Amino acid sequence: MENLLDHIETPDDLRKLNVEQLPQVCKELRDFIIDEASRNPGHFGASLGTVELTVALHYAFNTPEDRIVWDVGHQAYSHKILTGRRKVFHTNRKLNGIAGFPNPQESEYDSFIAGHSSISISAATGMALAAKAKGDNRQIVAVIGDGALTGGEAFEALDYAGGSKANLLVILNDNDMAIDANVGGLHQYLIDVITSQTYNRLRDKTWNFSTKLSDLGLNVQEFFRKLGHGLKSLFFKESNLFESLGFRYFGPVDGHNVFQLTRTLQDIQKINGPKILHIQTQKGKGFKPAEEGQTEWHAPRKFDKNTGEMVPLPDKDTIPPKYQDVFGETLLELAEKDSRIMGITPAMATGCSMNILMKAMPDRAFDVGIAEQHAVTMSAGMAKEGLIPFCNIYSTFMQRAYDQVIHDVAIQKLHVIFCLDRAGLVGADGVTHHGIVDIPFMRAIPNMTIGVPLNEIELRNMMFTAYNTPQPFVLRYPRGNGEFLQWKKDMEMLPVGKGECIRAGEKLAILTVGPVGNTAKKAADYVAEQTGNQVAVYNMRWVKPLDVSLLQDVASSYTSIITIEDGVIAGGFGSAVLEALETMNYSGKVTRMGIPDEFVPHGTQQELYKLCGYDFDSIVKQIETNYIEQ
Amino acid sequence: MENLLDHIETPDDLRKLNVEQLPQVCKELRDFIIDEASRNPGHFGASLGTVELTVALHYAFNTPEDRIVWDVGHQAYSHKILTGRRKVFHTNRKLNGIAGFPNPQESEYDSFIAGHSSISISAATGMALAAKAKGDNRQIVAVIGDGALTGGEAFEALDYAGGSKANLLVILNDNDMAIDANVGGLHQYLIDVITSQTYNRLRDKTWNFSTKLSDLGLNVQEFFRKLGHGLKSLFFKESNLFESLGFRYFGPVDGHNVFQLTRTLQDIQKINGPKILHIQTQKGKGFKPAEEGQTEWHAPRKFDKNTGEMVPLPDKDTIPPKYQDVFGETLLELAEKDSRIMGITPAMATGCSMNILMKAMPDRAFDVGIAEQHAVTMSAGMAKEGLIPFCNIYSTFMQRAYDQVIHDVAIQKLHVIFCLDRAGLVGADGVTHHGIVDIPFMRAIPNMTIGVPLNEIELRNMMFTAYNTPQPFVLRYPRGNGEFLQWKKDMEMLPVGKGECIRAGEKLAILTVGPVGNTAKKAADYVAEQTGNQVAVYNMRWVKPLDVSLLQDVASSYTSIITIEDGVIAGGFGSAVLEALETMNYSGKVTRMGIPDEFVPHGTQQELYKLCGYDFDSIVKQIETNYIEQ
Repeated sequence: MENLLDHIETPDDLRKLNVEQLPQVCKELRDFIIDEASRNPGHFGASLGTVELTVALHYAFNTPEDRIVWDVGHQAYSHKILTGRRKVFHTNRKLNGIAGFPNPQESEYDSFIAGHSSISISAATGMALAAKAKGDNRQIVAVIGDGALTGGEAFEALDYAGGSKANLLVILNDNDMAIDANVGGLHQYLIDVITSQTYNRLRDKTWNFSTKLSDLGLNVQEFFRKLGHGLKSLFFKESNLFESLGFRYFGPVDGHNVFQLTRTLQDIQKINGPKILHIQTQKGKGFKPAEEGQTEWHAPRKFDKNTGEMVPLPDKDTIPPKYQDVFGETLLELAEKDSRIMGITPAMATGCSMNILMKAMPDRAFDVGIAEQHAVTMSAGMAKEGLIPFCNIYSTFMQRAYDQVIHDVAIQKLHVIFCLDRAGLVGADGVTHHGIVDIPFMRAIPNMTIGVPLNEIELRNMMFTAYNTPQPFVLRYPRGNGEFLQWKKDMEMLPVGKGECIRAGEKLAILTVGPVGNTAKKAADYVAEQTGNQVAVYNMRWVKPLDVSLLQDVASSYTSIITIEDGVIAGGFGSAVLEALETMNYSGKVTRMGIPDEFVPHGTQQELYKLCGYDFDSIVKQIETNYIEQ
Repeated sequence: MENLLDHIETPDDLRKLNVEQLPQVCKELRDFIIDEASRNPGHFGASLGTVELTVALHYAFNTPEDRIVWDVGHQAYSHKILTGRRKVFHTNRKLNGIAGFPNPQESEYDSFIAGHSSISISAATGMALAAKAKGDNRQIVAVIGDGALTGGEAFEALDYAGGSKANLLVILNDNDMAIDANVGGLHQYLIDVITSQTYNRLRDKTWNFSTKLSDLGLNVQEFFRKLGHGLKSLFFKESNLFESLGFRYFGPVDGHNVFQLTRTLQDIQKINGPKILHIQTQKGKGFKPAEEGQTEWHAPRKFDKNTGEMVPLPDKDTIPPKYQDVFGETLLELAEKDSRIMGITPAMATGCSMNILMKAMPDRAFDVGIAEQHAVTMSAGMAKEGLIPFCNIYSTFMQRAYDQVIHDVAIQKLHVIFCLDRAGLVGADGVTHHGIVDIPFMRAIPNMTIGVPLNEIELRNMMFTAYNTPQPFVLRYPRGNGEFLQWKKDMEMLPVGKGECIRAGEKLAILTVGPVGNTAKKAADYVAEQTGNQVAVYNMRWVKPLDVSLLQDVASSYTSIITIEDGVIAGGFGSAVLEALETMNYSGKVTRMGIPDEFVPHGTQQELYKLCGYDFDSIVKQIETNYIEQ
């Protein structure tokens, strides 16, 4: 049989096919994704679940004139492949390749950015109101997973769109899973809806109804309008959560039946106003191992597409641990010693390794779902009552709960320990996921202490220190591996606000926070080997409070200073150093290295450090320039 | 009749009263609030609406052992008066007086801070989980208004608490109003619930039910447990939004019937798990003018408590306009010229004067309710489709949508103009409401332009400039009045990133952004009069991009520089100046004035400028010190 996918360059080509050919397109798409992902890792399970939906969407809607807004791009691989990016799909998530998420800068079919979750309904509402204002007759579709639906903004948008009567379609892609298992009342509710007799009947009724109308060539919209109040009261009587908010609800529909989906989407666009179509899909659909192990296959390593065997992980005893595992195991150790310690995370339990605590002490670890604001305030509530919560949130997602950190934690000076995982450049997830503004936004907050460990042993000790020091803490550490095979040593208190010299030198001092200090030390060693020039390196450890007494020593001993940080330069650690040096009337030269004032794309972490100018080579070069200038 | 309120120092005294005496306490409380507010302005309407609720809560619950978490303190005046602060209530919102919002640092009866809305359910959930972990047998009650319920975090918390089966009571204080009229699907839903026959029947049934059980001395909780599944399916059939999320729903109940409230609260605390009590109240209850003009009486000026007449506003022609009015009128002027311009605000339409546009062009102004995240992303959606949204959010509330500014607007480089009203120190609203971290957190974002107008004419011109320059903008301006009687001049483009010298001088230059530049100029004039020393003053206008060429001139002409800003020093405008000067190898002295690294309490703006050290006197002093040191 002739391959169809090979001839689809844009959705126009798809729409030329006969509806009967769509299952074949779906099969080819699925094989394509499995094949690509087996060689070039990415977000896998979610994209396998939306193959039929994506085909049906582009078949039923006139894209790009009609807008599809994906909520988190995890699910959008089929979309990318069908919209002109099949031939470059092997560059997915690589430097200069296509992004792992929809991004309008990449394609006109990507209506909106989609790295962070729960925003699609808000964006689609804005677009729908814009279409109305401009008199454009286009359809706007937001596709949101049940995991993303728990994020508060999704509710704000449902509430507003329902009240405003904006003309948009929300597709609830219900696969019963966020990254980790789904939680919350809503989750149970969706199961109830699906299993409820009443709703099954309502679903069948609605479905047969619009099918019949469409078969008869009737205008469905007109019909619904005529039914008017009678229908409304029917709906109100059998009201569900979405109808409560002013949406017309349809579903649930089998999300892997491409015929039914296509038909439904063709019909439903004739109905004006806010509407929601609830479809059921399976993460990993069509690839047995992924269907069975959904968390593991959310974003797998390379694998054998025939056997489903993933390439083995390197032996744990031969490489230093991930920072994540050190966090997870240390948290469990601390929790075993003090019953006041709790773990809280918004849907990142596996990623941040809080699942270690969760498994050992299920009553002491709380995955609140995609709900960063709630995670922070709930932690504050616990701390107010004398517990000691470790709240783990990826740096990029902490941007979602900034106000809560200020208002609920810092003003009340509560003992909440924020662990900002994946701080700094994260690599392949790219522009939306880098955690690079946390130092400026956190250090502006009074009462806040900010620690940035040099290595995983220091992370461990900082966690111990934060646990023993009753005030708000932020600890930020990167994605990736640490430095030592033997890291599980007795924990020690680190004096808050005290840094250390990790390499002696003269004339030039490098001040760092975080693991980039190790790179700086290696660079200084290299320069010493090459030139004999000895450059000092300081691990300042705490961005706030800065070690001003150590800084005073530095100011009086060196004529030149370089600061390095894995974050933006504007307002960051180097800026804090400048502020402190100014009060000391330091007259030497200060050069700040870190991320310049631009958004950073995807690539490996090493590639991006180089791009931003603070990898090993760049540091060596900077040392040489500054030392010679003395 | 003897006054009861005079003898209530703590809720223990209240609980000693006979239930029949509670209406008298309510009346006295209401009179007390009216009397106080008529002389010392504050949040008025909401607190009149919760008199009976507050009395019933402290009567039925064992405070402070049981926790009441107020969602925004607007409604908590009765609470303050009943919990030891009656005699100091006249100091409400004044420097060194009590705060306008609950604050645990003020009283053990204030369980949690309550300046920003929509957090109470999250905090209460954390407290309930803490009580469970510690084996404490206490009740946790969150009191949330229907306005605050639209904030996404409230939904995140309902969802999580409903799923977790935490033992807490949420009281939905439904007064059908946020500050401005309520919007959204939820709002209509609550009206439907109240007017629906089904729900009225259910309400009566539930009410009679628990009353009867209680009368018979039966254990309500045990009874409900026994009913078990049968009841659950009954509830599911008659499911409402809250039950969808796993809450048991009771109501609606008349929130001004103190007997019924007390009885309900006594009964409901016997039921374990997450539950919601829906009560109906009226804002301004018991004070006729406030009942009739709820927006006007949300936070009125001083008034005659007998006639309801407010002290007259000063004649518009005799004082410079508020920045708010300049924003509102300028927005309308721009919108009249370009149909792409839209106004968006999350529940601040009156406060920020977007109601001017709303009244003139209702289709062009969108009040989305308390939903900052949605406001930002919806604006982004509009901008993506070619509209030009002016999104007005108070600086303190912009902290709620930080991620959306980065992810949805800045990365996509969309033409959204954020107008940050009430930036800087806001005065009487105090610690939770100061908008003082926006410069650091905004300037860390690539693609962002940040303007801070010197006066209201510059605000107007900056709005015009931002409108004409298709990229993301932040304009921040303070609460309060401008400088000129004649401000409505033709709008002019201001070159982006260009500042100006507003006072010539030598040796010492003062660099400012915002209206504090006017104070600096006056201070420099004063010093010149006194000493003959001429100090230069620069209005830098843009924090980002900084005018580096002007700064280069400054660096080469003055041996000493002072920066002043109405915001935190850590990472702020002064810090940006330091960063730029460092690249110029400036060797002079730089002194940064602004808010030190501490939270700032309430007081008048002038009192707080003085407290933070950048009022007129402080600037004069700093000039003298720096000039002499030359």
